[in-house]
Amino acid sequence: MTTALSSDFPFAVEARDGRARAGRLRTPHGVLETPCFMPVGTKGTVKAVSPTQLAGIGAQIVLANAYHLALRPGVELVAAHGGLHGFMGWHGPVLTDSGGFQVFSLADTRAVRDDGIEFSSVYDGSRHLFTPEGVMRLEEALGADIVMCLDECPPATAERRELERAVERTTRWAAACRAAQRRNDQLLIGIVQGGTDEELRRRSATELQQIGFGAYAIGGLSVGERGEEMLATVDLMDELLPEERVRYFMGIGDPRGIVDVIARGVDVFDCVLPTRMARTGTALLRDGSRANLQNARFAADLAPLDATCDCPCCTGFTRAYLRHLVNQRELLAHQLLTLHNLRTLVRLCADARVAIRAGRFAQMAASVAGR
Amino acid sequence: MTTALSSDFPFAVEARDGRARAGRLRTPHGVLETPCFMPVGTKGTVKAVSPTQLAGIGAQIVLANAYHLALRPGVELVAAHGGLHGFMGWHGPVLTDSGGFQVFSLADTRAVRDDGIEFSSVYDGSRHLFTPEGVMRLEEALGADIVMCLDECPPATAERRELERAVERTTRWAAACRAAQRRNDQLLIGIVQGGTDEELRRRSATELQQIGFGAYAIGGLSVGERGEEMLATVDLMDELLPEERVRYFMGIGDPRGIVDVIARGVDVFDCVLPTRMARTGTALLRDGSRANLQNARFAADLAPLDATCDCPCCTGFTRAYLRHLVNQRELLAHQLLTLHNLRTLVRLCADARVAIRAGRFAQMAASVAGR
Repeated sequence: MTTALSSDFPFAVEARDGRARAGRLRTPHGVLETPCFMPVGTKGTVKAVSPTQLAGIGAQIVLANAYHLALRPGVELVAAHGGLHGFMGWHGPVLTDSGGFQVFSLADTRAVRDDGIEFSSVYDGSRHLFTPEGVMRLEEALGADIVMCLDECPPATAERRELERAVERTTRWAAACRAAQRRNDQLLIGIVQGGTDEELRRRSATELQQIGFGAYAIGGLSVGERGEEMLATVDLMDELLPEERVRYFMGIGDPRGIVDVIARGVDVFDCVLPTRMARTGTALLRDGSRANLQNARFAADLAPLDATCDCPCCTGFTRAYLRHLVNQRELLAHQLLTLHNLRTLVRLCADARVAIRAGRFAQMAASVAGR
Repeated sequence: MTTALSSDFPFAVEARDGRARAGRLRTPHGVLETPCFMPVGTKGTVKAVSPTQLAGIGAQIVLANAYHLALRPGVELVAAHGGLHGFMGWHGPVLTDSGGFQVFSLADTRAVRDDGIEFSSVYDGSRHLFTPEGVMRLEEALGADIVMCLDECPPATAERRELERAVERTTRWAAACRAAQRRNDQLLIGIVQGGTDEELRRRSATELQQIGFGAYAIGGLSVGERGEEMLATVDLMDELLPEERVRYFMGIGDPRGIVDVIARGVDVFDCVLPTRMARTGTALLRDGSRANLQNARFAADLAPLDATCDCPCCTGFTRAYLRHLVNQRELLAHQLLTLHNLRTLVRLCADARVAIRAGRFAQMAASVAGR
């Protein structure tokens, strides 16, 4: 039985090619065309680039993180700006992650209790308690269009008992988040856990659907498990999750990984990889390969980074110039490579949408090499 | 007697208000409307912002530095891009400083000889010799529209004997640069030295005009001398330099200093101050004051940085958001504050041009406070 949703955004799967889907999700701040890569702006800014620049490369949505923003600058300040859209100056859709993952991975000390997670701030060591109800209040104040439940994301090395306990808590917390939701203009997403264990994934997916969410996320993957186990789990999720709901794979950002999850029915995904790699001088290329611009082979290379790319980096500068910027630790390198890497994934998704509608997604996906 | 110039760009003083001048200098890459603040892009990039963004805030010209570029990445690579315009992706006018100042201030070890300066690279300690002829070859290869002679810039603490020797060398090197100039599409600027010593300034200005340059720079100020001595020296230069040539004050970038030198007949000026201050979280405001965004008084301030400013920073973000970016060391802070600080000086100069033409420069200058 599915409880009536307190908020639900229209999502239409408009085309299918194999299990790949192309669709449209309407949000209060605009339509998301899927498949869609979502750039990460953890602290209310996609590192090194402005909202205007993001819009210019075709980004559709930006992610932010409730954990980080609750600690700095505090949700009250964001709310005083009318929410994240006003705070960040980004007027398209916004998604906030609860920050459960950050509590697990960043907090100095933490204690997971059945009612929530107690932890020390990475900023000043102060003690905080994240409960499902508390996280919903934070995400309400942040005002994103799409908000995530508090979940427990165990590491790939977790024992089955730990995975099982995480599924139990994730279900309990999801129900509490669902019950605590007050705003009717935010799409609340339930997060399926269970590692790569088929039985636990079935249980988690079933329990979340019994609670009833407007969309579902696949959490707990891309945390160090083997590639084939990850893909087998995504295959399973495709079978278990409802067709008419958006599916969000949390944490994938390399071109090959993206086409692999699109091929398995995933609609949206995010990752810090393109932006983080940019800041180490590495470019993602459309064919799935990477270029480390510190490499001496680019020293006198007058070609653009990617001759097929229409981003401000590739249309304005040579590889040799980019290498000069990277080697001299010039800030412009971060801006240009961030724009390029994000544009590469935005273009990849646009190409996938066209290919799915044209029934040639498999050929398009085959053009993207693994690493 | 003025030698015929191997290259000269048309410069017209179109309006005067007191000693302040408004004019136009034609270069192969476009017209410079003066008074004009010139953003500094030492290594072939104005730190943290792109050429498109610079054009967007109305910057007219960019400076680069022959010393830095000769060491990294080397002038051959820049020349292979057709010069700095192609290398940097900036299609307006470019000026290169010789880098003499950097040799004096940065080089680990240096020996000034009558034929040039021998020094160790800040990058790898390798030994180099800058001669006037060599510097002209570097600047030719870099391909800027406006190029500077090699000069000797002594510190404000220099004894008269040292100042005098610097004037002698600067004259000798200027003559050698003039003789070594081969390109006829680069405006070569002679640099007047002499500290705050009236007799030496007269001598330097006279000797340089005997050689004959298309424009003159006032070097050796803003190096630590007292403000009134600096302004008295600029007053003297106004008397000594020819009316029909562009005058370039090297190294001034605070609003009050800028109106003070414009009031004394200076046409163009540059400084790292606006871009460097931006990267420490400090904003230059139109009235001459400064705002350090780390200050707690901005913590909940929802106003724009400067309500009168039309830059991407002031039209898109609040002070509280900027403070969050600065405190979290987010790269977007550098981009936004750099654009704002440069826009402030670009606007100040545009206002000065209008005010000079309207005969109300004194009132406009009075609106800019000292620090």
